Amino acid sequence: MTAESICNQRHRERMLRKQKVVDELIAGATHDKGLLLVITGNGKGKSSSAFGMVARSLGHGMKAGVVQFIKGAFSTGEETFFRRFPDEVEYHVMGEGFTWVTQDRNRDIQAAEAGWTVAQTMLSNPAINLVVLDELNIVLKFGYLPLERVLNALHQRPAGQHVVITGRGAIRELIDIADTVSEVNNIKHAFKQGIRAQKGIEL
Amino acid sequence: MTAESICNQRHRERMLRKQKVVDELIAGATHDKGLLLVITGNGKGKSSSAFGMVARSLGHGMKAGVVQFIKGAFSTGEETFFRRFPDEVEYHVMGEGFTWVTQDRNRDIQAAEAGWTVAQTMLSNPAINLVVLDELNIVLKFGYLPLERVLNALHQRPAGQHVVITGRGAIRELIDIADTVSEVNNIKHAFKQGIRAQKGIEL
Repeated sequence: MTAESICNQRHRERMLRKQKVVDELIAGATHDKGLLLVITGNGKGKSSSAFGMVARSLGHGMKAGVVQFIKGAFSTGEETFFRRFPDEVEYHVMGEGFTWVTQDRNRDIQAAEAGWTVAQTMLSNPAINLVVLDELNIVLKFGYLPLERVLNALHQRPAGQHVVITGRGAIRELIDIADTVSEVNNIKHAFKQGIRAQKGIEL
Repeated sequence: MTAESICNQRHRERMLRKQKVVDELIAGATHDKGLLLVITGNGKGKSSSAFGMVARSLGHGMKAGVVQFIKGAFSTGEETFFRRFPDEVEYHVMGEGFTWVTQDRNRDIQAAEAGWTVAQTMLSNPAINLVVLDELNIVLKFGYLPLERVLNALHQRPAGQHVVITGRGAIRELIDIADTVSEVNNIKHAFKQGIRAQKGIEL
């Protein structure tokens, strides 16, 4: 046998073992469920990930609802883009700045309540297949919404409805009830090297 | 002072300190750059994150190119969705299954080469503002493409062009030249609890 054919043979064996593991996992994964996903951590890509899932959902003919609980200083590409599809995406952005921009706890709470009212409507609408609650983790961390009310609404949502909650500092109570939790960590960030937020990437 | 007004005052002070830190970071971040982002780790949301950035880019009137280096067994929502916009997104999916599905190293290398030819064209086209090389990390980890060629193409791409590379196991040489690196870790995954891949979320 040549070195190359040995290499190819080893590769084949390694991939066969891998396929076996994957096949077993697939065989064991037999039921469908409306998932609760939490995407947390301090790294770049949490909200982007949720918006990628909105794109995926639309590709399957599903409908999506988005509530952005933190409105940044700039208009965002994702909002402009998804507002192109008013029949497919219901899009709500909280009307106020937030946290360190407002420095006003009462105003923040009012804004969070207003956002939550919209979220709750989506979470009781079986026609919406995917609900994105962008940056809700921060709202919950600051205690701006009664936790009990949020957990109840998630629990009572229509069967089959997926929910994605993003933002750093996800609270333990939410992680406990989530189906999938990803933590995005910052290994390196352009911003800290003097590069400002770039359109299409951060905005 | 009431307990509530003390609480509000403390909040205000905390947020003012936070704003100062953010303001200093923003003041120091003064230049623009075509970013190289690497999204790696074993958690859910890496590719979704890249597709969210495609959505963001389109919202800003930018153009995007996508090469998916691993074609799964199922048709994906993101492909169906972004193919709606042929003038805005150039979309290429490698024609073969991959790794543990094919178990054929030579065929994988050929498929990787074909994908790379498309990627290289995008990476030399200044009209494409964002290039997503989905799952390229795995291709590089397996050594299916000459690293030197990949690094050169990234280095020589048009100024201002953003590139997002996804997939677990990003190699050190790529992390070294990236502007931003996020690692997505799996805290919990529905799949391992017997729930199969859900449309809009994983597919």
